[in-house]
Amino acid sequence: MNQIFNPKSVAIIGATDRKNSVGLCLVNNLDNKKRDIFFVNPTYTTLFGRKVYAKIQDIEESVDLAVIAIPRQFVEAVVNDCIVKKVKGVLIISSGFSEYDDSGRELQERIALKLKESGIYLIGPNCLGIANPSVNLNASFAPSTPKKGDIALISQSGGFIDSVINSYGFSLIVSVGNAAGITLEEYIAFADQDKETKVIALYIEGVKDGRKFFNVLKSIKKPVVAIKAGKIPQLQKAISSHTGSLAGEYRVFSSALRQARVSEAESMEEMFDIAKALAWQGRCKNKIGVVTNGGGAGVLMADYLYDSEFELPKINAIDNVRYKTNNPLDIMGDATTLDYIKACESVISQRDISALIIIQTPQMTTTSLDNAKAIVEISKKYSKSIITVFMGNVPESIKYLEEHNIPNYTDPKRVIKPLKSLLKK
Amino acid sequence: MNQIFNPKSVAIIGATDRKNSVGLCLVNNLDNKKRDIFFVNPTYTTLFGRKVYAKIQDIEESVDLAVIAIPRQFVEAVVNDCIVKKVKGVLIISSGFSEYDDSGRELQERIALKLKESGIYLIGPNCLGIANPSVNLNASFAPSTPKKGDIALISQSGGFIDSVINSYGFSLIVSVGNAAGITLEEYIAFADQDKETKVIALYIEGVKDGRKFFNVLKSIKKPVVAIKAGKIPQLQKAISSHTGSLAGEYRVFSSALRQARVSEAESMEEMFDIAKALAWQGRCKNKIGVVTNGGGAGVLMADYLYDSEFELPKINAIDNVRYKTNNPLDIMGDATTLDYIKACESVISQRDISALIIIQTPQMTTTSLDNAKAIVEISKKYSKSIITVFMGNVPESIKYLEEHNIPNYTDPKRVIKPLKSLLKK
Repeated sequence: MNQIFNPKSVAIIGATDRKNSVGLCLVNNLDNKKRDIFFVNPTYTTLFGRKVYAKIQDIEESVDLAVIAIPRQFVEAVVNDCIVKKVKGVLIISSGFSEYDDSGRELQERIALKLKESGIYLIGPNCLGIANPSVNLNASFAPSTPKKGDIALISQSGGFIDSVINSYGFSLIVSVGNAAGITLEEYIAFADQDKETKVIALYIEGVKDGRKFFNVLKSIKKPVVAIKAGKIPQLQKAISSHTGSLAGEYRVFSSALRQARVSEAESMEEMFDIAKALAWQGRCKNKIGVVTNGGGAGVLMADYLYDSEFELPKINAIDNVRYKTNNPLDIMGDATTLDYIKACESVISQRDISALIIIQTPQMTTTSLDNAKAIVEISKKYSKSIITVFMGNVPESIKYLEEHNIPNYTDPKRVIKPLKSLLKK
Repeated sequence: MNQIFNPKSVAIIGATDRKNSVGLCLVNNLDNKKRDIFFVNPTYTTLFGRKVYAKIQDIEESVDLAVIAIPRQFVEAVVNDCIVKKVKGVLIISSGFSEYDDSGRELQERIALKLKESGIYLIGPNCLGIANPSVNLNASFAPSTPKKGDIALISQSGGFIDSVINSYGFSLIVSVGNAAGITLEEYIAFADQDKETKVIALYIEGVKDGRKFFNVLKSIKKPVVAIKAGKIPQLQKAISSHTGSLAGEYRVFSSALRQARVSEAESMEEMFDIAKALAWQGRCKNKIGVVTNGGGAGVLMADYLYDSEFELPKINAIDNVRYKTNNPLDIMGDATTLDYIKACESVISQRDISALIIIQTPQMTTTSLDNAKAIVEISKKYSKSIITVFMGNVPESIKYLEEHNIPNYTDPKRVIKPLKSLLKK
């Protein structure tokens, strides 16, 4: 599968300059000098000053990946051409297959079988495409090109990908569509092997083979966070028309996720909150220390931690400080960066503390960026988990923290699910 | 109380140019041409080219509000001066009172009694201060000056205010501190009368008189959202040292909030999610319509709505459309602004729909700002509640929506609590 996620050459079948078309979006998203891009479309001879081929067989060079974005009635003939051309993989963006009607389902099965017999990978049909930011591949009609990161997002909804693509960094993005060729399970196993991927994030509406799905989740090494859509029986019809999967009974599914040590997210934001903790921080034990410069935020944090049965060990006495040594450790509103360093070093070096939550409310004398830099230095010295809660509007400091793999949450409550996920796997 | 929330003149007792001092922060935050500002400090004669008075009585003009930011041992003498000067109100920022030790408590009681007998309002002590953005008053040492808005925030934690002050718009901000003079209940009643305030947001650690507190909540007209910190018994000691209030049993408190038709928020972000819905949208019935251009987001939204027992009436057939009329109504990934208008107008004009949720995933051809403008136009034509879920990174469109009082949430799950709050009161 490496050859289709890092192709040397890509043919866009359905390349066009028509405004608001998928073909044009693919032309733009795939445009870079990392690989050869060929345009295929019988109604053009040139496009943006470049040659357009009538058929993929007309291309002299070899083609690793053929991306097909044409009406469904033309897809089968083009797939036949791709088989003749001996491409390595075919990505079918086009819809109108098993998700649409019975004849679409038959067509899809025929195409999938042909490609399988020819040893050619099939992605889709009915999908947004794929992206592999570390090799500058964006073979999708997403509205933007994702930043490089360490989350592999594998999604049964293309719109879900569109909603998050410019908010996070990704190692891989796969819109599985109807998954007639490469299966959901095969994408997960591939992401587990991908060296840029540190965490696998799944948007799941339904799985075709539950046993196979949970077996792969149990067998892989990397942590997984999943969101299950279509929990309510009333919705199963809506889903089957979306990607042609069966929704299944939610409770059974959720308990199987738990058994596979997958973190289940209840919302999109929570999914990425969890993903960044899993990607950036090591697993920890249930022994949590909290350092805060805000009394109120500390009380809220403690509420959430106790309510979720986290343990807050006693903090050892710290010499020469004005504050009482409780956990949460309130180092007061006028805490300086030196106060933060002294308190954090003291707490994190306690044997019975496994993870440290550092809260910052932006008060009058708070030096936010200096605090962020100090925390990054501390994180390099200790192999324990660190999570920050820099609140208020301090984007520069948060950017610094997250660039150095310290996950930040802007509300104490958002720490809980990510921290729970660090106890797993 | 109007005279102290919109004072014609303010004296800063403890004005200074010392770096990182509360006195300097007050000088900066109060600096504007809306009112006379006087500096009081016996150790200066001039400050920033302006006269500094040794005592407040030395000021010839009348003083409405005296803000005191000096060590506690000097506070009583200065309060005596304020009584002589016949100020309208005294705001004591200084700490070291009932939250600190017994002698602090006695001092606080003595000062409060004196001021009461002289008919002078007392805010604090041990507080961040107050702000009234509509008259450009920032009598606090918060790190920034809040934008004008319609939320009155009344908080038992100053750090809580610091954490949100530059993220939202406010009509009033009050850090109640130890509330030795004006009580929590009196601030709430004042906010209820304030014409800029549309919703009251409370951060509560504990109340001194539960009956009085819940009586005022039941008697006021404006909607209220509250967050209760210190839910866990282990934390009550930490709280009593924070603002000197008793934390009380959480369950009793929570059920009393419900009886008073107060929306309880579980997190800071949720508090403001709820506040903006209550401030900007009218109350609605449990008859919800959903329009979406993203299948996945629509399924997630429906999951959350059904799980919270919202009712989704059948959508009437719409002429000449490609999509099936379900609720959520999926108008497809390539929906244009005209598609949004047609679908939204049709759904919102149904008699049995009381509130409309409009979801936008930013897909290839999505015209986000045009959609936002169209939604604002629709909101002017119908007196029903509208909430949007514009996902992905579309800050310009979200700004447009929220400037026109359409609350936007970036995740479908975040709609639920605000929508529930619109069913109340």
